[in-house]
Amino acid sequence: MKVGIIGASGYTGGELLRILAKHDACEIACATSRRYEGKKISRVHPNLKGVLDMEFSNLSPEEVASRSDFVFTATPHGVSMKAVPKILKEDTKVVDLSGDFRFSDTSRYEKYYGLKHEHPEIRAVYGLPELYKTDIKNANLVANPGCYPTTAILGLAPALKVGLIEADRIVVDSKSGISGAGASPGPASHFCTVHDGVMPYKVRGHRHLPEIEQGLSQFDSGVRISFVPHVVPVIRGMVTTIHTFLKKESMDVTGQDVWKIYSDFYKEEPFVRVWAPGEIPVMSASRGTNYLDIGCFETDIERNRLVIVAVHDNLIKGASGQAVQNMNLMAGFDETKGLENIGLHP
Amino acid sequence: MKVGIIGASGYTGGELLRILAKHDACEIACATSRRYEGKKISRVHPNLKGVLDMEFSNLSPEEVASRSDFVFTATPHGVSMKAVPKILKEDTKVVDLSGDFRFSDTSRYEKYYGLKHEHPEIRAVYGLPELYKTDIKNANLVANPGCYPTTAILGLAPALKVGLIEADRIVVDSKSGISGAGASPGPASHFCTVHDGVMPYKVRGHRHLPEIEQGLSQFDSGVRISFVPHVVPVIRGMVTTIHTFLKKESMDVTGQDVWKIYSDFYKEEPFVRVWAPGEIPVMSASRGTNYLDIGCFETDIERNRLVIVAVHDNLIKGASGQAVQNMNLMAGFDETKGLENIGLHP
Amino acid sequence: MKVGIIGASGYTGGELLRILAKHDACEIACATSRRYEGKKISRVHPNLKGVLDMEFSNLSPEEVASRSDFVFTATPHGVSMKAVPKILKEDTKVVDLSGDFRFSDTSRYEKYYGLKHEHPEIRAVYGLPELYKTDIKNANLVANPGCYPTTAILGLAPALKVGLIEADRIVVDSKSGISGAGASPGPASHFCTVHDGVMPYKVRGHRHLPEIEQGLSQFDSGVRISFVPHVVPVIRGMVTTIHTFLKKESMDVTGQDVWKIYSDFYKEEPFVRVWAPGEIPVMSASRGTNYLDIGCFETDIERNRLVIVAVHDNLIKGASGQAVQNMNLMAGFDETKGLENIGLHP
Amino acid sequence: MKVGIIGASGYTGGELLRILAKHDACEIACATSRRYEGKKISRVHPNLKGVLDMEFSNLSPEEVASRSDFVFTATPHGVSMKAVPKILKEDTKVVDLSGDFRFSDTSRYEKYYGLKHEHPEIRAVYGLPELYKTDIKNANLVANPGCYPTTAILGLAPALKVGLIEADRIVVDSKSGISGAGASPGPASHFCTVHDGVMPYKVRGHRHLPEIEQGLSQFDSGVRISFVPHVVPVIRGMVTTIHTFLKKESMDVTGQDVWKIYSDFYKEEPFVRVWAPGEIPVMSASRGTNYLDIGCFETDIERNRLVIVAVHDNLIKGASGQAVQNMNLMAGFDETKGLENIGLHP
Repeated sequence: MKVGIIGASGYTGGELLRILAKHDACEIACATSRRYEGKKISRVHPNLKGVLDMEFSNLSPEEVASRSDFVFTATPHGVSMKAVPKILKEDTKVVDLSGDFRFSDTSRYEKYYGLKHEHPEIRAVYGLPELYKTDIKNANLVANPGCYPTTAILGLAPALKVGLIEADRIVVDSKSGISGAGASPGPASHFCTVHDGVMPYKVRGHRHLPEIEQGLSQFDSGVRISFVPHVVPVIRGMVTTIHTFLKKESMDVTGQDVWKIYSDFYKEEPFVRVWAPGEIPVMSASRGTNYLDIGCFETDIERNRLVIVAVHDNLIKGASGQAVQNMNLMAGFDETKGLENIGLHP
Repeated sequence: MKVGIIGASGYTGGELLRILAKHDACEIACATSRRYEGKKISRVHPNLKGVLDMEFSNLSPEEVASRSDFVFTATPHGVSMKAVPKILKEDTKVVDLSGDFRFSDTSRYEKYYGLKHEHPEIRAVYGLPELYKTDIKNANLVANPGCYPTTAILGLAPALKVGLIEADRIVVDSKSGISGAGASPGPASHFCTVHDGVMPYKVRGHRHLPEIEQGLSQFDSGVRISFVPHVVPVIRGMVTTIHTFLKKESMDVTGQDVWKIYSDFYKEEPFVRVWAPGEIPVMSASRGTNYLDIGCFETDIERNRLVIVAVHDNLIKGASGQAVQNMNLMAGFDETKGLENIGLHP
Repeated sequence: MKVGIIGASGYTGGELLRILAKHDACEIACATSRRYEGKKISRVHPNLKGVLDMEFSNLSPEEVASRSDFVFTATPHGVSMKAVPKILKEDTKVVDLSGDFRFSDTSRYEKYYGLKHEHPEIRAVYGLPELYKTDIKNANLVANPGCYPTTAILGLAPALKVGLIEADRIVVDSKSGISGAGASPGPASHFCTVHDGVMPYKVRGHRHLPEIEQGLSQFDSGVRISFVPHVVPVIRGMVTTIHTFLKKESMDVTGQDVWKIYSDFYKEEPFVRVWAPGEIPVMSASRGTNYLDIGCFETDIERNRLVIVAVHDNLIKGASGQAVQNMNLMAGFDETKGLENIGLHP
Repeated sequence: MKVGIIGASGYTGGELLRILAKHDACEIACATSRRYEGKKISRVHPNLKGVLDMEFSNLSPEEVASRSDFVFTATPHGVSMKAVPKILKEDTKVVDLSGDFRFSDTSRYEKYYGLKHEHPEIRAVYGLPELYKTDIKNANLVANPGCYPTTAILGLAPALKVGLIEADRIVVDSKSGISGAGASPGPASHFCTVHDGVMPYKVRGHRHLPEIEQGLSQFDSGVRISFVPHVVPVIRGMVTTIHTFLKKESMDVTGQDVWKIYSDFYKEEPFVRVWAPGEIPVMSASRGTNYLDIGCFETDIERNRLVIVAVHDNLIKGASGQAVQNMNLMAGFDETKGLENIGLHP
C-alpha cells in the first residue's frame, strides 16, 4: 500500500517514517515538508541515514492523495482542517494526528483551540482502538488521540465503566517528556530551562482536558477531571498518575479486585499491558514501543482512594504508533504490523 | 558558637557543613562518620576542598556534646532515637534531622517506621518556623521536618486555615530529586534506572504521609491526604502539585483571592516567596537556597478546583537549611544567618 | 537454532535477549542467572514484559551447551575463562563477551586484567566483522570486542592502513554512557554522581588500551595510543574523538580525500556508515542500533591535524549487537538478521 | 562603588547580577536590556526573585557610564567593540566579556570573528589574573577571557613554562555545559538534541583556538593546539582533558613531579586548586564557584604522555566570576570579594 505523509519533518512525522520504513505492507510514497523541500530526509531525521534514501517534497494535499492509497496528516491544528477534506474527496483514507477532528461538539473545539472550525460537517472516528475498534475498521477518517488523553481515558475507562469511583473528583497528574512540545526550539524547550526542572503548565485550560472529558463521558456523564500536565526532563515517555476516590459502595475493593477488572477489560488488546497490583510501570518498558502500561492499583480504605498509573511513549502510543495501529485496522492489516519493536532498557 | 554534627558524611551532613562553613556565628567543632573516620572531609564532599580542612571523627554523642554548644543529628531514624537523649542530658541543644521525634502520637511513628520508640517521654518541637516560631525559639530539641511535609504543610496551611477547601479530598502529588534518597548506592539510585524515568513509589504507605496529616490537623481535624511521591531525574529540588476541591461556599473565589490569603499568611516570613497568580515557581529559583516558593493559585469554577504548587530544594529548605534556620532561632541569631545564598540559574 | 545465554541478567545479557526474541532464525533455549534463578526475566528486564515469558535458570555451562546449538557467555572476565572451554568441549559454538579471549599475547591480558589465564591454549577469533569476516565465519569461538576498541580500531584502521598519520602520537578521547559500567549499583553509577558530571577515569591503565593497540598493530607496529575514557551523563552511546597528526608526506590531504579512503574501506559493510566530510555523527542516529557511525574528517594544515569521530551504541555495536552479528556469520545467517532496528530520534 | 551592567538579560549578565547582589562593596546602578526594558529582572532571572527588586533599563553606554563607577559589558562581540570606547571616554573602567578586545593581533580577531575591528587602537589587558595580576590592577580596560581558554591556558602554562612537553603536539579536548551557548533558543540547545548526546563541534575553526594559542605563545612560540570543543548534557561546567607528549629529556618525570610544578606555580592563587596526582577533579566541586580545579597529572613512560584535566564552571571562572575577580583587582578590593560561594554537591 502506498502511504503519503503530510508534515513529515516534525517529531511525529519522523516517527511515522521510522515505523513505516520497516512496515512490510507499506511503501512510503511521499513525505512533505515546506521548509525542507528537496532536502534529504536523513538531514532532519538522522536515524534514517542509510535506511530511507528519500527527499522531502512539497506536494499539495491533492497531489499526495493522488499518489497514495493512504495518508497521514501530521500537520498542526488549523492546517489539518483544510487538508483533510481535500484528501477525503480523492477517496483516500486518512489518519489525522492533529486535534482538528477529535471533537464531536465543535463548540468545545473552538473554545479550547481558539479557532473557527471550517468543516464541522466532516465527522471522524476517534482513534482509540481499545474502545472503538469496529468503528475504526470502517472509517475513512480517524482522528488520532492526544498523548495525554490516551493515558487518561484508557487509565480510567474500566474503573468508570463499573462505577467504582467518584466521577466528579478525578485528579489526572501527568508528566510528559519534552518531545511532546515538538521540534521547534523555544524558551520552553531550551536545555537549560528543562534539564533540572519539573514544570506544571496550562494548569487550567490545556486542550487535552475537554478531550479527556469527552472520551470518558460515555461511562459517566458527570465526569469532571482536574488535569495538571507537567514537563519533565526526559525526551520521550509519559507517566500519568491518576488519583481517584472510591464510591461509598466500593470502599472495600482491593487492588487485586481492581487489577482483575482492568485485566478483563483489556484481555484482547495487544498493546495494553496490565501490571500486577503494586507493580508500577517503568518508562523504559514502553519507550520505543506502542505499549500502554497500566498498573499500581493501590487502594487505601482509611482515605478511600484508588491510584492508577498509566505510562506510554508519547510519540508512539501517544501519537505515531497509535496512528499506524489505526491505519492497520482501516486497511485490514494485522493490528500489530510494523509495531513489534521491543523497548530499549536501560 | 561551637557546633557538632553527628552523621556528617551523607548529603544532609554535607549540606550542614557547607552552610556552617560560611556561617559567621558558628564554628564547626566536629563532624562524625563511622565509615570515614580519619578521612578528610573533602574526600567525601569535594566541594569543600580548600574550604574546610578537617577530618571526620568517630566521637560518641556524649563526646560531641561535650565539645559543642549545639548539635545536629543527621543520623538515620532509629539511630537518632538513641543519640539525642544523651546529648540533651549534657544540656546541649539539638536539631534532629531524622523522623524519630516528629510525632506527637508515638503509635503513628511506630506504625509507619516499623520501630519501637525507646524514648516516647522526650518531646520535641516540630521545626517548621513558619508555623511554630515561638516554640522553636524556646526549644531544646527540634525535630526537623521531612522534605515532602515541608512543601505540603506550608502549601496547604493558609487554604485550610480559612476553610476554603474540602479537607478530606486533598491530593498531594510530589516530584522529588534523587538526592532525597541519600548517598548510598542502590538499584533505585542507579543512573540508568533514574535518568530517563519518572517513578511513583510508596503510593500507599510513605512515612511522610502521617507527618503531613499531623501537621495539618490543627487546621482541620478531618484532613485526609492522598499522597503520591515520585522520583524525577534531577539531583535536587522538589515540586509538589497540590490538587484541592473548593468547598461549596468558596466556589466563587478567584486565584487573586487565594494569592492574597497566602501573601498575608506569609508576609513576615523571610524564606517563603508567594508567586503571583498564574505564575508557576521554577525549580532553579530555589535550588541552592532556603526558599520555599508557593504559586499557581489556579481556580476552575466548572470543576470547583484549586491547584497550588510548592517548590523547594529538598536538601536545604527540605532538610539542612531548615535545620540551620531552626538553630538560628534556638540560638537567638538572625533567622537568615548563613542562609543568604542566591540560587544558581540556569 | 537453539541459543543459550550464560549471564543473562546484566545489561549485555538483556540486550541479547531483546535482540534474539525477534531474531527469526533463533529460539532462546535458556538464560542463566545465579542471582535471579526462577525469577521471571521481565522482572529484571521490564522491556520484555509480555514479550518473553521465561524464567532465569541456573544451569551449568555443560547443561546450557547440551540444550543449545549456540551459546553466548555474557559473564565477567575470569568467569568466561572457565565456562568457555566446557562449552567448546560439547562442540557448541560460542561468542564470549568478556575480555578473557581477546588477547593473542596472554601476558598482556594477565598484566591488564590482573588474573592468571587458565586456558592460554584456547585461541579465539577477534570478533570485529569489518576486519576479520572470513575468520569469524569459520570460528568456533569468537572473542567479542570491547566497546571502546570497536570505535577506536574501526575509526583508525583506514587511516593507518594507508599510512596517513603518525602512529606514535594518536590521542583517543572517548565519552561513554554509564550503561558501560554495568547494572550493579555503586558510587560511580549513583545518579547524583553522574547526572551533572563528565568524568575522565583510568587515565593510564584502562583494560581496553592494550586491546586497541593490539587491534591496530597489524597496520603499523609502532602504534601508541594515548587513551582517556570518560563517563558522560547518558545511558547508552559512545563518542570517540580521535585526534591524529598527519605525516609530513600527507600534509596536503583534504577531508574529502580522507572521506574517500574511509568510504572505500567500508563500502561493503552493512553496519558502518561513513558520514560526509564536516558532518559529525549524532548519538541518536545509532542509539538502539548496530551501526557504527564514522565522520568529521577535519584536517588543518596549519597544525597538521586530522580529527575523526566514531559513534555507536555501546551496548549494541559495542557489545550484544556485535555479538549477534558474529553469531550470524558463524551460523551462516545473513549478517544483518535480527539487527534491522532503526534508532529512535529524538 | 556603583556598577553598571550592559547586556544583563543573558546568562553571563544574570551571573554578574547574582554575584554583585551580594558583593558588599558594590551597588548595582543599572542593568540594561533592549528586549526586556521596563520588565522586572526577576522575570528573566527567577533566582533573583525577592533578592533584587529592579527593572531592566535601556540606557546608552554613555548614560550607563555616567551613573556608574565601573561597567561590565556582557554584550555580543561586535557590540562591545562600539560600546567600550564610549565608556572609557567617560573615564569609567570596564571589564568586557566579549571577544572583541582579547587579541593583540587584530588580524587574528578579524579572521576568526569575521568582523572588521573598528577600534584597533584601544588596547586591553587580558584578564587572566593568575598570569597578569599586576597589569590588571592598573588597567582601565580588561578583556575577560573565553571559557575554553581559561581552562586550556591555565592548564598548560606551568608545563610549558618549564619546557616539559612538546609544544606542537598538544591536544585540548573540551567538554562544555550548554549554558556556554547562551540563553537564546535554537536547534542546538533544544533539550531533545542535547539531552542524550555528546557533540563535537567547530572542530577546525573555533574562535577560542587562536585565543588559546595567543595566551600560551609567551611560554613557547611554537605552540600548536589541536582543539576540539564538545557540548555535553549538563547546564554548567567544563572539563578540559589535555593530552600532551613529554619531551625526550622529560620522559622520566612522574606525576608527583608535575604536581609539584603546578602546586608551586599556583601557590598564591586563591581560585586555583591543584589536586593530588591521580585525583581527577569532579565538576560538582567547582560548580557555582569561581574555582578552577586542575588535576590528574598522569604520566605513562611507554607512550611518553602526560594528561592534565582542568575543570571550572563556565559561567563563573569561565565568565562572570572571573570578570568580578578582575573588577576586584582593578578597584583595589580583595580579590575574592563576592566570590566566596561554596559549590553545591551533590
